Amino acid sequence: MEQEFSSTLLENAVTSLSRLPGVGRKTALRFALHLLRRPAEEANTIGQAIIDMRNGIRYCRLCHNISEEELCPICASPRRQPSTVCVVENVKDVMIIENTGQYFGLYHVLGGLISPVDGIGPDMLEIASLAARVAEGGIDEVILATGATVEADTTNFYIYRMLSRTAPDLKITQLARGVSVGNELEYTDEATLARSIAGRTPFEI
Amino acid sequence: MEQEFSSTLLENAVTSLSRLPGVGRKTALRFALHLLRRPAEEANTIGQAIIDMRNGIRYCRLCHNISEEELCPICASPRRQPSTVCVVENVKDVMIIENTGQYFGLYHVLGGLISPVDGIGPDMLEIASLAARVAEGGIDEVILATGATVEADTTNFYIYRMLSRTAPDLKITQLARGVSVGNELEYTDEATLARSIAGRTPFEI
Repeated sequence: MEQEFSSTLLENAVTSLSRLPGVGRKTALRFALHLLRRPAEEANTIGQAIIDMRNGIRYCRLCHNISEEELCPICASPRRQPSTVCVVENVKDVMIIENTGQYFGLYHVLGGLISPVDGIGPDMLEIASLAARVAEGGIDEVILATGATVEADTTNFYIYRMLSRTAPDLKITQLARGVSVGNELEYTDEATLARSIAGRTPFEI
Repeated sequence: MEQEFSSTLLENAVTSLSRLPGVGRKTALRFALHLLRRPAEEANTIGQAIIDMRNGIRYCRLCHNISEEELCPICASPRRQPSTVCVVENVKDVMIIENTGQYFGLYHVLGGLISPVDGIGPDMLEIASLAARVAEGGIDEVILATGATVEADTTNFYIYRMLSRTAPDLKITQLARGVSVGNELEYTDEATLARSIAGRTPFEI
């Protein structure tokens, strides 16, 4: 290995880059050699952007989405509907829902899902802070938007049980399960199809 | 897009990371979110390693391989055979040949291949410096090890013609072309097979 790289600086860069998810040493070397061929400015920009991001980003005090201020731009926006809170697993889910352009409420980022197998209990997630937000009042509806896995179901059930006890008047909803838009029926799995029949909606023209 | 990221620091990191070869915005976002989940130290290490590599690495005065000193570890090594010079396209080829553990001479990194289509002429490559090294004396053999493409053939021919004029006693060789080790004959292309017949070698037990 020592012989492979004629430079420890290159060796360090390759080792570092191969810590990125899905990046092996071959890809890391390709990244490094690419950066060596480009102007120094480009490597400096990339390196500094990584450092600045990691050190500059904090999490929104209210919804735990990534933010540079105490409140994230969504929580701080006067144009958002504060009475609706969409509960999601992570910050990427916030981006995905924001990209639909169809949601105008606030979020609550759990930071993961309850998973006894992985040793992740409710205390390690932002569930108590969700209960606290609801207890403060002003929230009419909580949308559980956490995917369709076993962990998501467990988490949803836990949150539902907790909130329905502490806030009996709160409307608790979840994302509709059904046939994907554009999908043919024969490629829809049976569990989804069963739920889409049970949850059928009035025909709209 | 502005709405997609609730942080310009994240936006900058994603834009920067997506400049890496083969990395789109989705992958760049995955890298960024991964780094946000990991300790700050890790992002700092990666960022700094990129910057240090780009600013600390220079090229060997003699062979133009990457190096941290004026001479790369290969050129500086007393255990290498200085009378043989292996001409390669780029620094990665040096690593590939070093990994075989079967070559003990020096290198000469061209920094590319002659390619009129891409506007790359001999003047943009380290060809004159190769002629100068040969002219200084002490080199018995130059191995042309530049792959088997049209650009490689053009470059080899150019170097051959130049060196055979300026150094008529120099031995100029090229990598053997033939059936890959472990490959069945039926998967070997005809051009390679033809060359392996023309270049057949005495049978060795």
